[in-house]
Amino acid sequence: MTIPMILHEYAASGNCYKIRLTAAHAGVAIERREYDIVAGETRTPGFLATVNANGRIPVLQVGDRFLPESNAACVYIATGTALIPDDAFDRADMLRWMFWEQYNHEPNIATLRFWTGWIGLDALSEAQRMQLGPKRAAGDAALALMDEHLSARMFCVSDRLTLADIALYPYTLKAEEGGFDLSRYPAVRSWLARVGDQPGHVPFA
Amino acid sequence: MTIPMILHEYAASGNCYKIRLTAAHAGVAIERREYDIVAGETRTPGFLATVNANGRIPVLQVGDRFLPESNAACVYIATGTALIPDDAFDRADMLRWMFWEQYNHEPNIATLRFWTGWIGLDALSEAQRMQLGPKRAAGDAALALMDEHLSARMFCVSDRLTLADIALYPYTLKAEEGGFDLSRYPAVRSWLARVGDQPGHVPFA
Repeated sequence: MTIPMILHEYAASGNCYKIRLTAAHAGVAIERREYDIVAGETRTPGFLATVNANGRIPVLQVGDRFLPESNAACVYIATGTALIPDDAFDRADMLRWMFWEQYNHEPNIATLRFWTGWIGLDALSEAQRMQLGPKRAAGDAALALMDEHLSARMFCVSDRLTLADIALYPYTLKAEEGGFDLSRYPAVRSWLARVGDQPGHVPFA
Repeated sequence: MTIPMILHEYAASGNCYKIRLTAAHAGVAIERREYDIVAGETRTPGFLATVNANGRIPVLQVGDRFLPESNAACVYIATGTALIPDDAFDRADMLRWMFWEQYNHEPNIATLRFWTGWIGLDALSEAQRMQLGPKRAAGDAALALMDEHLSARMFCVSDRLTLADIALYPYTLKAEEGGFDLSRYPAVRSWLARVGDQPGHVPFA
């Protein structure tokens, strides 16, 4: 891939870190451009018209085209690398964990981290406060499901690191910032250490 | 693909219909096995141990392996067909819309349909009732974003039907069952008609 790539991001977002981690493992250089999401820099008319009509980061810019959605950007960068399995079922199973991450994991675990560390639990709206219990329960259910799955495996899919692991790593790593107790999930903790020990790993920073 | 496939499903679910629609376009035969989700048939110990530890349908069974997550199942079935673009960016862009569907569209539009038609708005919990306004607003924002995107295009990605259209079709088609007014989104309505007119289409039933 020789087209220049720019990551429009907020560095503390796990969805953005996924893409940097994928690029590191794939050996692909990306330029980084930072936006202050709390100050509304991804909701300006210019951002909405050019980068992402959905007002969200990350967005991967490839030449003059823009690709929102973190997991789609990871797939683009990792195309042709060992981060995506050759076998058709394993490849679909990798996507299964990536869709599951966005539906069952991120909206609970990442959202509670954001509410705790960025908005502040005292500043939540009434509607958000009513979601604290359901999101806590759903986040713990997601971690329990991962723990059971990983108790018999080294990685989420097949026997090596794939994008499924990369997609699930950032917000699992930071789950305690949202009040989740990872000591309850020993297989998840072993897997976090294993992913962090892979050659080519870069830290969340 | 000669391995026998079984779709574990609930026929009224749009996530299940996606997979049937993909199979129809791909010319792949799948056996259907129905579960009553309202009666808890996907939460039994047998279902959780064998089909999906996440207690959800659809799950695509391929031989003796099980693949949850509707959009992952669509990718598996469509592998090697024109439903997945050859170009790497277009293929990632297709996945972008599929991730967007599961994060921004389905949790609002499909959930309001389910709450309206299956649970009943009078029977919602207090926490659910507090989500009616936010989900209504987020669902309308999703439809507006689709409407803008489709106002200049025939299909979501490239110039022909891909899995991005198939993933977004079922719950958009049924959005009015959740109280959304599709007359506000003329480009979405034209696109619905276009997808429904494609050779090989099968109805939601």
